[in-house]
Amino acid sequence: MDFSSKLLENAVNEMSQLPGIGKRTALRLVLHMLKQPQEQTSQLAAALEKMRNEINFCKNCHNISDLTLCEICANPGRNEKQVCVVEDIRDVMAIENTSQYRGHYHVLGGKISPMDGIGPGDLNIPSLVDKVSNGQVEELIFALSSTMEGDTTNFYIYKQIEGFNVLSTTIARGISVGDELEYADEVTLGRSILNRIPFETSLKS
Amino acid sequence: MDFSSKLLENAVNEMSQLPGIGKRTALRLVLHMLKQPQEQTSQLAAALEKMRNEINFCKNCHNISDLTLCEICANPGRNEKQVCVVEDIRDVMAIENTSQYRGHYHVLGGKISPMDGIGPGDLNIPSLVDKVSNGQVEELIFALSSTMEGDTTNFYIYKQIEGFNVLSTTIARGISVGDELEYADEVTLGRSILNRIPFETSLKS
Ligand SMILES: [Zn+2]
Ligand SMILES: [Zn+2]
Repeated sequence: MDFSSKLLENAVNEMSQLPGIGKRTALRLVLHMLKQPQEQTSQLAAALEKMRNEINFCKNCHNISDLTLCEICANPGRNEKQVCVVEDIRDVMAIENTSQYRGHYHVLGGKISPMDGIGPGDLNIPSLVDKVSNGQVEELIFALSSTMEGDTTNFYIYKQIEGFNVLSTTIARGISVGDELEYADEVTLGRSILNRIPFETSLKS
Repeated sequence: MDFSSKLLENAVNEMSQLPGIGKRTALRLVLHMLKQPQEQTSQLAAALEKMRNEINFCKNCHNISDLTLCEICANPGRNEKQVCVVEDIRDVMAIENTSQYRGHYHVLGGKISPMDGIGPGDLNIPSLVDKVSNGQVEELIFALSSTMEGDTTNFYIYKQIEGFNVLSTTIARGISVGDELEYADEVTLGRSILNRIPFETSLKS
């Protein structure tokens, strides 16, 4: 693409660094901004920068939070002995939305994916194993998407905590295999949490 | 959507103001930013803000430009008596890409669209009519997309300049009717410029 303006070109190039945003889409978005009031772009820019620079992760569960401890971990009404292992904040939001779960979470920050160069060391796995080995956890609920990467990650963690006295469960697969958790409807997802089964059982199916 | 962080929520809300970006997509993009170095988000924010605040439009053709006069208008090797009327910068880029055109452009900044509340007064039409009435233009090439809005706009301008001594042409429709100009392949688009026909002829078909 040949641009008549360096300012425009820079904006398009930066926008098109985002996943799923090609040059053409980036140009369309940037031209839209030019038709809107300046303040709108200023607000967008400020919100992104502030978010990126000031965001916190809960020191207990690694969920995104504005405080050192997230609302869920800080809530004494929730059962800290029950820990639901998820990939990222979108899964927490999806499960919270069902109102079926009153335990804690542990946000891994991704799935093991050798193709993308993501190994166990890139995820919040050590702190989870620590929690389990310290006897802080009675039940570990595996709630990663049942993709190859999700299964690999589940199994890796399961092997790490196998020797400890903890009940490993996995959410019931009312959700079709291969589907992303975050796109499941609330009812199905709520039910799959209520009907969780021992992790060992899921290995046999 | 219930967010665990106000910073995250603000960023998602601002992103989802952009056309075609829903809340879910916005969240995906913002979470991606959190996995990238801080500088990347800073650069994006700065590029958008700088672009929005400092962008210029060429005083002659209204194309986006970093200078008062764009490169095309400032180029003495281009024929200023030949003016191609387009909707926006993407059409200029598409036609320039064919290397088949050596005249000037006139960027309207949109199409007449009563549905979207866009009337002739919202577009760069008066300055075009001025150019024609001052005898600065020998040939006016209509190159808007052949949608209902494009045809309405063409016809409106044509009526405004009908009395003046100017040749009105329109790009040949090798391009299928209803297709957006910017998505046409170079060869078809280049040919349609070379084979332009008198505007009056296009009204009869
Ligand atoms: Zn937490
Ligand atoms: Zn110009």
